[in-house]
Amino acid sequence: MAINNTGKIFKAVSSQAVLTEQSDLRQYLTGLSTSFGYVLSDKNGSTFYTDPRYLEMAENVLANTGINVKLFKEPLKKILEPYDEVAIPLSRTLYESWKSLSDMNLKIVDSTPAFESAMAVKEQEETALIKEACKIADKAFVALLGKIKEGMSENEVAAELEYLMRRYGATGTSFDTIVAFGENSSVPHHETGYTKLKFGDIILIDFGCKYGGYCSDCTRTFLFGDDGKHQEFKTAYGHVLNAHMLAKEKIVEGVSGKQADAFARDYLRGYNLDGYFTHTLGHGIGINIHERPYLSPKSEEILKNNMVFSDEPGVYFAGKFGIRIEDTVMLSDGHAESLTNSDKKLTVL
Amino acid sequence: MAINNTGKIFKAVSSQAVLTEQSDLRQYLTGLSTSFGYVLSDKNGSTFYTDPRYLEMAENVLANTGINVKLFKEPLKKILEPYDEVAIPLSRTLYESWKSLSDMNLKIVDSTPAFESAMAVKEQEETALIKEACKIADKAFVALLGKIKEGMSENEVAAELEYLMRRYGATGTSFDTIVAFGENSSVPHHETGYTKLKFGDIILIDFGCKYGGYCSDCTRTFLFGDDGKHQEFKTAYGHVLNAHMLAKEKIVEGVSGKQADAFARDYLRGYNLDGYFTHTLGHGIGINIHERPYLSPKSEEILKNNMVFSDEPGVYFAGKFGIRIEDTVMLSDGHAESLTNSDKKLTVL
Repeated sequence: MAINNTGKIFKAVSSQAVLTEQSDLRQYLTGLSTSFGYVLSDKNGSTFYTDPRYLEMAENVLANTGINVKLFKEPLKKILEPYDEVAIPLSRTLYESWKSLSDMNLKIVDSTPAFESAMAVKEQEETALIKEACKIADKAFVALLGKIKEGMSENEVAAELEYLMRRYGATGTSFDTIVAFGENSSVPHHETGYTKLKFGDIILIDFGCKYGGYCSDCTRTFLFGDDGKHQEFKTAYGHVLNAHMLAKEKIVEGVSGKQADAFARDYLRGYNLDGYFTHTLGHGIGINIHERPYLSPKSEEILKNNMVFSDEPGVYFAGKFGIRIEDTVMLSDGHAESLTNSDKKLTVL
Repeated sequence: MAINNTGKIFKAVSSQAVLTEQSDLRQYLTGLSTSFGYVLSDKNGSTFYTDPRYLEMAENVLANTGINVKLFKEPLKKILEPYDEVAIPLSRTLYESWKSLSDMNLKIVDSTPAFESAMAVKEQEETALIKEACKIADKAFVALLGKIKEGMSENEVAAELEYLMRRYGATGTSFDTIVAFGENSSVPHHETGYTKLKFGDIILIDFGCKYGGYCSDCTRTFLFGDDGKHQEFKTAYGHVLNAHMLAKEKIVEGVSGKQADAFARDYLRGYNLDGYFTHTLGHGIGINIHERPYLSPKSEEILKNNMVFSDEPGVYFAGKFGIRIEDTVMLSDGHAESLTNSDKKLTVL
């Protein structure tokens, strides 16, 4: 994707120079996915320094973006000679990188807030990629449902789903797929393992894929056959689904992350379920699977149009079962729109 | 895996306290795969501080290892109060973590060298896991060969292979699978994409999986049908294979990383191919896919028994083709033993 976010970040940072080496931030600046490089911006423009592996590709893709491409051959010290100060994303910088810049007698400015604010609000090119990642994940999930059989392990189900997402065009997963059978669903971040599927099991699947460098995120909880012992689960499922839908309905442009979280949490409190909702309502989704905005009881951040985030209430009963229902949603024209759309009505396979 | 490497590291570091928060290093110390926690060692023993998600599991797994398990609830400042100094892996520490420790007036010692040296030489429990990861990858690769069809994309072939590795027991890949068709093979780190397979194409696949937290690494280059135009490729293939085998034969306990690299590089020089061998011979393999020892022209490191590393000479002709042949090998009883074992004789599908 030919993109140039260097000007936006340079303007927001206000430092003589902005130096970026983190791969996700470099991707945000240039649209390129590379494992090595620096982007340097100053008042005269931006240059992407990279190694011979990426040089030709970068020259081609960045040709009309205004970003110069150079081979990284001189030491950073030499490249940074013209400046008295440089901005780097301090929260994402290794001690040794900070130290080497600091030893050059450069004043160090933090570019983290500029990146985080800018990346939270998506451009149209970015939402197009996220929408495609969500579509691929939806399609793979529906195909997966026809392949789940008694005796399969959690790992095997995860393997099927990841395979389907790749076959449908994803370049990879956005995080380690969580597949939890039975009481394993009560662990919010269960490590997918060798547990085998039995008739009557609850299945919780939290999955996402990448397309063009951007992530999707979705969770569904359903039953592998109904053994008639799931009344408590079904009641709780209805409440979690209502909390999920209510949050989606009430989240409008201008509410804070805290208010968004409270829409779901207050609803669950009405059924004495808030004590089992042990995580936050959601997180921003983009190049990274967790980014701003955060929808949590502590988040003062105001939600804006073109932010993309998860709506994922969940309740967890230790040793018994857990339920989480999650969509990737986007604030568009003031309202939350689902980008993942597989069925949320309780499925019994 | 119940493991306790805390004593080994504490002894090697020589600091009042050793604090470790990096997930791979925590896994090395405790055998546990967790996304949050600190391991703190001092002369009285070691404690794993974690959050409620991992508490019960950690208590169970670490019960007989001598590592205490505690809920992380007090701030680090309080936990570190008894000490004047603390060791952290400086090369792997974020600036902000370093700063918060530095602000506590603690003398900071670097634990990186201790970790890197210890992790390079594997314990028997560790080599067992690497061997299993290699077996799974071998089995998946052989099964993959029967599934490759004309018109498939690189991404689809990667999806098939990753699926097979998971079905055979892997928990994931050890890095993004590289599948390169035709002239894409001339890019050592080609990004697997949408190129479709044609009769007569060269196929290069660099792949690995994880088992029990440990990696495998293997590369094979072969032909999808012989269109009779591959004489230059076949000649070069023979030389790369000879370089690979020669290195494996000559690498014995006590040679340096530099000498190991030279075994292959000098051989290729004899055929004027050293200029096309644009990377190093190999890298250590363990919890991380790239770790010590490094087998490169600059590496003075001495190879020891129970080190595990790659033997991967390659030659790359821009715009034409590339060849890489790689096994994961282990130094055992003084000699290099292949842990990946799929056929290296030139395969024509």
